[in-house]
Amino acid sequence: MALHRVYDTGRDRLVFDVGHQCYVHKMLTGRNGRMETLRALGGIAGFPKPSESKHDACISGHASTAVSTALGMAIARTRLKEDYRVVALLGDGSLTGGLSYEGLSMAGQRGEPMVVILNDNGMSIDASMGGVAQHLARQRLKPQYLQAKEIYRKIMLATPPGRAVYRFLHKVKEGIKASMLPGGMFENMGFRYMGPVDGHDVKGLTRILRYAATVDGPVLLHVKTTKGKGYGPAERTPDTFHGTGPFQVEDGALLKGSSGESFSARFGAELQRLAEEDSRICAITAAMTGGTGLAGFAEQFPQRFFDVGIAEGHAVTMAAGMAKQGLLPVFAVYSTFFQRSYDMLLHDVAIDKLHVVFCVDRAGLVGDDGETHHGLFDAAFLKTIPGITVLCPASLAELSVMLRRAVYEISGPVAVRYPRGGENHYSEDHSQDPACVLREGRDLTLVSFGTLTGSILLTAQRLRRDGISAQVIKLNEIAPLPKEAVLHSLRETGRLLVAQECAEPGSPGEGLLAAVAAAGIPLKAAALCSCGDGFVTHGTVPQLRERCGLDLESLYQKAREVAAYGSEKTSGCPAH
Amino acid sequence: MALHRVYDTGRDRLVFDVGHQCYVHKMLTGRNGRMETLRALGGIAGFPKPSESKHDACISGHASTAVSTALGMAIARTRLKEDYRVVALLGDGSLTGGLSYEGLSMAGQRGEPMVVILNDNGMSIDASMGGVAQHLARQRLKPQYLQAKEIYRKIMLATPPGRAVYRFLHKVKEGIKASMLPGGMFENMGFRYMGPVDGHDVKGLTRILRYAATVDGPVLLHVKTTKGKGYGPAERTPDTFHGTGPFQVEDGALLKGSSGESFSARFGAELQRLAEEDSRICAITAAMTGGTGLAGFAEQFPQRFFDVGIAEGHAVTMAAGMAKQGLLPVFAVYSTFFQRSYDMLLHDVAIDKLHVVFCVDRAGLVGDDGETHHGLFDAAFLKTIPGITVLCPASLAELSVMLRRAVYEISGPVAVRYPRGGENHYSEDHSQDPACVLREGRDLTLVSFGTLTGSILLTAQRLRRDGISAQVIKLNEIAPLPKEAVLHSLRETGRLLVAQECAEPGSPGEGLLAAVAAAGIPLKAAALCSCGDGFVTHGTVPQLRERCGLDLESLYQKAREVAAYGSEKTSGCPAH
Repeated sequence: MALHRVYDTGRDRLVFDVGHQCYVHKMLTGRNGRMETLRALGGIAGFPKPSESKHDACISGHASTAVSTALGMAIARTRLKEDYRVVALLGDGSLTGGLSYEGLSMAGQRGEPMVVILNDNGMSIDASMGGVAQHLARQRLKPQYLQAKEIYRKIMLATPPGRAVYRFLHKVKEGIKASMLPGGMFENMGFRYMGPVDGHDVKGLTRILRYAATVDGPVLLHVKTTKGKGYGPAERTPDTFHGTGPFQVEDGALLKGSSGESFSARFGAELQRLAEEDSRICAITAAMTGGTGLAGFAEQFPQRFFDVGIAEGHAVTMAAGMAKQGLLPVFAVYSTFFQRSYDMLLHDVAIDKLHVVFCVDRAGLVGDDGETHHGLFDAAFLKTIPGITVLCPASLAELSVMLRRAVYEISGPVAVRYPRGGENHYSEDHSQDPACVLREGRDLTLVSFGTLTGSILLTAQRLRRDGISAQVIKLNEIAPLPKEAVLHSLRETGRLLVAQECAEPGSPGEGLLAAVAAAGIPLKAAALCSCGDGFVTHGTVPQLRERCGLDLESLYQKAREVAAYGSEKTSGCPAH
Repeated sequence: MALHRVYDTGRDRLVFDVGHQCYVHKMLTGRNGRMETLRALGGIAGFPKPSESKHDACISGHASTAVSTALGMAIARTRLKEDYRVVALLGDGSLTGGLSYEGLSMAGQRGEPMVVILNDNGMSIDASMGGVAQHLARQRLKPQYLQAKEIYRKIMLATPPGRAVYRFLHKVKEGIKASMLPGGMFENMGFRYMGPVDGHDVKGLTRILRYAATVDGPVLLHVKTTKGKGYGPAERTPDTFHGTGPFQVEDGALLKGSSGESFSARFGAELQRLAEEDSRICAITAAMTGGTGLAGFAEQFPQRFFDVGIAEGHAVTMAAGMAKQGLLPVFAVYSTFFQRSYDMLLHDVAIDKLHVVFCVDRAGLVGDDGETHHGLFDAAFLKTIPGITVLCPASLAELSVMLRRAVYEISGPVAVRYPRGGENHYSEDHSQDPACVLREGRDLTLVSFGTLTGSILLTAQRLRRDGISAQVIKLNEIAPLPKEAVLHSLRETGRLLVAQECAEPGSPGEGLLAAVAAAGIPLKAAALCSCGDGFVTHGTVPQLRERCGLDLESLYQKAREVAAYGSEKTSGCPAH
């Protein structure tokens, strides 16, 4: 609210780092009436989204990007001689990411006017100095003091001797301040540091924001807030309310209970079991202990549990060091955030063929978080990592088996990828071979892996009723791709449908088609059912599957097309 | 040398950040006699390489990885109850990368004993405080002082009142020190800071290293060095000697002159030309001004030139902010380092379809830097970026045309990728359409893009003499992939050879094969000639092409195979 009193967000650029913080901003910028549609298909997004409103300056779903974005905008403003203002709003967690540091270093060095607000709601920057700092900060932040300081500054800088005295006193003062205030780090980088101030005092905050907006250079405003402030249940258990679903306002109880065991929970439990038998096993997370199912592990093995903060690149490189020296590191990470580790996978793990296990959670559609959070690219980017094995459990039982295999039976880098939530029409274990024929058939070949395995089995059952006999092949590995099983089937059927919950470019389905061509097998019809180029809006997972043509009805219709299509030889692909 | 006096690198782990610094280390660890084979095919590598010697602790070609790796190793050492020591050796440039910050934060917080050496040969950490700091540092680093300090510490900490007094005095002292010493930042992170010390005083350095190795926690040792110390020509022009080829010892003159205009030089000149006409154009580099050909631009347009340090992620996110607000940012980056930007490409640029131009230099084989530096993955990872256009000039003339097109005619993210060095048997301009038939033929279809274009033209000429008529297709874009031109040709020839200087998984060749299968075209024979899974050793580019089967002779032989293979229909691929 204070930001909106000071800035005109239709013109000024308010860059959110942690996009979840944008709800009040959305209410104040014409979307109050649509808050009930939040994160629902066709409704407003849970993150800022420029295509939704001119008040949303940029995309922000991944952390630590705001300072870099804001700096780019401030540079553009100055170069193009425009006069809007630029503000970046960071959470304290964002500061654990190296990208924030890269952005802050350069912003401090360039001196472009911009305000970086650190919304510090938990992790203290410097706990031991906190008291002194707050005391000093209170003194410093009285507007009279700030005005007096500016006047003093102007007078002193007006004459050469004044400048010399000012600089000397300034240096002494800065020296003392650096040691007493949490802002020392920021001041060293070139920021004017202000704070910490109470983020719940809208009036006071407005005043300091107004002042910060007048400074001709980069400002770091340190704001202290309480997560969930004003709503008891959220204040008491802030973690539960980080990206929550609908809940009962009276007591904060979630309206929709969990529906059975999740892949994340099974992974955590299974890793604990393995770790009980083997002291070399360590678990790593990048600020997602609960989400990845590692809370139990963290409690049972605090010495072997490593939360690195929002630093996925570091997590992988550190894991490489651990593996090199004899540990068995397991890095559990959401597919979308794993994108940050791409170079480290290649450079630090793969060249030296180090045995690091990556448990890639939230692979596929994740639902209401939308574009920035779906895990639709890992299937493609992981296959470019030389020597990697990528395992795709389709059931909880398979996850247990494959996790053990990843840790003990496979050498070099290994990824195990599984979806958000629980099982989807499939709970068996056919994980023995790289590929597995789940059902024999001769009219067409249905291929899938992971979470859509149950869907193609159901599709085959339904086709059966139409007199169409579909061979169902489940890929347990997507790298290296077990082509032979599929080619063998296609030599008989000549018709292929691949159902994959990932982006199409570089997908396993594309790899299979390439293998078909290389083997000289002429297809009568082929269809890749996937998530297109990879960006999918927000909504429930079933709704989004329907959009992508990955729901049961769409798969059935597409399979019928593939089965029926073309008697002529060079018919091509009806569906692709 | 000092490091080798103190550490047993066969057991202790010496982790280089900037791998070029390892030459003396290699000489001292059994490879002195092989220094003449440095960076030559079959010879020793220019970077540390564990497969070459147990004294090389890990791969290190990309910057800012050492602290993370060393921390992983130190954790493994402690967990497995072993007693070797871990040292990370950083250059000052490495500190500009966020990954270093992520590693330092966690290392400081965990307190694992390890020594991080900052080899500071240029960029001053804190220029204004340097003098005072050095003065104090000299005092502090006398061994007697250090011993006295330890004794004092032990006595004080032995009793509870002593502890209280010690802590109070320590805090006051630390406060003063933080403001006076450049080490404040490191001490805040949890490191014991020592230095700066003279890195050319082997005796003094040995002494302080011995002491640092005894500290029970993380130490940051700040060492000042002169780049090229002791060799006049290198001291005078250190940039020229950063990764140099053979030179004349007497005067430092390079033995092998440059052979004609490079793609990098043409890019720089062309961008300058465009920038003269359009003030919105800005150039960004990540510490590679000279290498990417931007030195002239930096001189002519200092206000529109941005060197972000070794921070490729930040470069992309900042560029997104610039593009969003109306600038035309052009980020020139080596293919291998661009891997660090993968998530930012997806999240910060592609979702919002921002128009950022990426000039991907060193795409393909780079030669003597080997595994860590070849640009063999960008063709695959770029194609997974939704909405991106990837242009592949094969000649300098085409680079000029395509750069202009990238800046003005294409919307959304655009990459222009080109090789290290200059032209390769091709200097024409056929860049008009996404794909172009350079030569008609009916027996087989030869496809390539970028630097191997001339090679397939020469191959076609040679095949002609054998009476084989090859259609030659050059792809000017590899994303989106212009499939139709190739499919059209294959419907006649049924035989395909793709020559591509990149890794095979996810490559354009794979995409073409997938399109062939989807179109139902039966191939009689197909071959993808590429760099395998993507890791290729060091050597000259012609030698490495031969290894990969991408030299003229190999391509000719493979093309003959493809042309001759199989009269039977389902013969499959002889070569793939």
